[in-house]
Amino acid sequence: MGTGSETAVSINYDERIKRLRIRLRRKRIDAILISRPENRRYLSGYRAPDHGISETSGLLFIPARGRAQLLTDSRYQLQAEKETSLPVTLYRKGVLALLNDLLGENTIRRFAFESHYTLHSFSVKLATLAEKHKIELVAVTDFVEQQRLIKSEEEIELLRRSTALNEEVFSHIYKLINGDMTEIETAAAIESRMRQSGAEGPSFNTIVASGENGALPHAVPTDKIIGKDQGVTIDMGLILDGYCSDMTRNFVVGTADETYTRIHRIVRQAQLAGIGAVQPGRLMKEVDRAARKVIADSGYGKYFGHALGHGVGLAVHEAPSLSFRSRRKLKPGMIITIEPGIYIPGWGGVRLENLAVVREDGCEVLNHDTTFLYI
Amino acid sequence: MGTGSETAVSINYDERIKRLRIRLRRKRIDAILISRPENRRYLSGYRAPDHGISETSGLLFIPARGRAQLLTDSRYQLQAEKETSLPVTLYRKGVLALLNDLLGENTIRRFAFESHYTLHSFSVKLATLAEKHKIELVAVTDFVEQQRLIKSEEEIELLRRSTALNEEVFSHIYKLINGDMTEIETAAAIESRMRQSGAEGPSFNTIVASGENGALPHAVPTDKIIGKDQGVTIDMGLILDGYCSDMTRNFVVGTADETYTRIHRIVRQAQLAGIGAVQPGRLMKEVDRAARKVIADSGYGKYFGHALGHGVGLAVHEAPSLSFRSRRKLKPGMIITIEPGIYIPGWGGVRLENLAVVREDGCEVLNHDTTFLYI
Repeated sequence: MGTGSETAVSINYDERIKRLRIRLRRKRIDAILISRPENRRYLSGYRAPDHGISETSGLLFIPARGRAQLLTDSRYQLQAEKETSLPVTLYRKGVLALLNDLLGENTIRRFAFESHYTLHSFSVKLATLAEKHKIELVAVTDFVEQQRLIKSEEEIELLRRSTALNEEVFSHIYKLINGDMTEIETAAAIESRMRQSGAEGPSFNTIVASGENGALPHAVPTDKIIGKDQGVTIDMGLILDGYCSDMTRNFVVGTADETYTRIHRIVRQAQLAGIGAVQPGRLMKEVDRAARKVIADSGYGKYFGHALGHGVGLAVHEAPSLSFRSRRKLKPGMIITIEPGIYIPGWGGVRLENLAVVREDGCEVLNHDTTFLYI
Repeated sequence: MGTGSETAVSINYDERIKRLRIRLRRKRIDAILISRPENRRYLSGYRAPDHGISETSGLLFIPARGRAQLLTDSRYQLQAEKETSLPVTLYRKGVLALLNDLLGENTIRRFAFESHYTLHSFSVKLATLAEKHKIELVAVTDFVEQQRLIKSEEEIELLRRSTALNEEVFSHIYKLINGDMTEIETAAAIESRMRQSGAEGPSFNTIVASGENGALPHAVPTDKIIGKDQGVTIDMGLILDGYCSDMTRNFVVGTADETYTRIHRIVRQAQLAGIGAVQPGRLMKEVDRAARKVIADSGYGKYFGHALGHGVGLAVHEAPSLSFRSRRKLKPGMIITIEPGIYIPGWGGVRLENLAVVREDGCEVLNHDTTFLYI
């Protein structure tokens, strides 16, 4: 069992690899190369991020039978040996030379790689290597991600802590906002506070959008000053012990007018309807529909264009999607955002987002922050 | 002419695209899709970074004849329209749907994409699209990078400013180092100061390695305290107006012993020999050899394993490589690092790195910092 985390929460990495191997054998895959950092961390505890996809800090080589290992280079040796209990093999002449040896040693006929986190140029080199060893190369997507779909209680605890710290950072910054700071300055203050508070960093680019800018669901902060008496959307998340938080709050510095107050209340009602609809066995689209109906019934249906939510874990956007198209069903242990919104071009927008765990008997909301929820 | 930069330095993006088009026609490529952020910025002035390769902030679609355009989504619209003079086309249903339209409209027979910055999974979708339109898909690497090899005077000025700011940050932090801070704390202080000073961020993960840790050329900072009386390697760079700096200094807090002083002097002599050898028309490997000879003659040859230097520009590692194997020749306008080092396992290491421009009559060093160069 690895001890990658610095907290008291203990993750059983051996168990995760064991389950992966069973799934590999079921698909008649003899070995898989794991390149995506979240998947690498999920399976091994090794925390090093990549410095962009062109500069990997290591790969996992996991045969369906036989020894799993972390492949990396000498500069990560110390960190790797500290964070993972897997054997660490260093490559001195590049990872391809090492893979050439590994594929030669092992009796591999079907070799999988992560298509959604492998450069085309690298896949061409893998193909050459596979051909040389008469191996069938299998491009997989979302193979490890499927295993990450249902969270253990340990993972839920880590997501709870990540959410609590994110709320602490929000509260701190919220008190500082006075109608003088720009969106960019506010976002920078949030991300700086995250790092000071012990987060590994933001889990995505912080959104601060005020007034009309709030009409874009994924607005990029601008040098606009957050003025008084207008809506402000702050969508923020951080990474703590690998696990992401994701929360959106909406508020007014000064006085909220009637329109803002009405729209904010509708969005909050929609959110509560969505939360109320979460039940194991329920279709994703039914939960979406429960929230969407509140907004549609209030006459704002066409201003809510995106899905109600998405999964969160080691990645800030992962399966499942709480989409109006999805016929998949909720299962206990899934973690989802519930984030309805109303976006009106020329006016602005309101989105409210909490993180929820699907439980046997319904839904546990991980957030406790109540800023501006009772207007 | 675009005005992407906030400084007085003006870049002619039209000219860059014009040259690219000539090169496309020469290779019988009818259009190219540019996904790599540095290349996108080089050709358009559009500054937005990607949030990882899976979340692009836009692509350039450049036909050999016809209208070049920036493809992005609504959240980047304002920024794109401000930073580039190219027409901005928004995709609302994903970039593939838009590409489908563009490939249908245009008479394209050979369509290129950047193999070294395209996910395998996306390349599979591109291939399907190409097949549908009966188009030949061409995977290119380093196509735009080749054009970026020779820098204009405007680019050299931007690299000079980036280097000057990097040295300012180094000087500031150097004064704070007192023998109590850990490597990680020092690296964090450097990167924080970079951002406060107006840099877009570090150009690579800052290296702070003290004592034995200095024996790894690309050491990752640890929680080791930078003690007194031992060597410290700081390798740091920042991004200013898109252009990267990259500098390494080596020093001792307290008293440098005889071994350290001797090795430091040898490395500095090797660096000066390398700088002295820089001349247009000279082979890369000859410059490497000039520096390497100084180290070898002093008996430390086996402790200098890497190449003497690399190109720097919009990327911190780019062509050319000043390698002992390279038979390419230096040309005026190339920018290269000159960074010899001696790394002794169990003892530590010394590396000194400056940035140099190849000039008609030799070499201009962009650095002015002299910390610990005269011991």
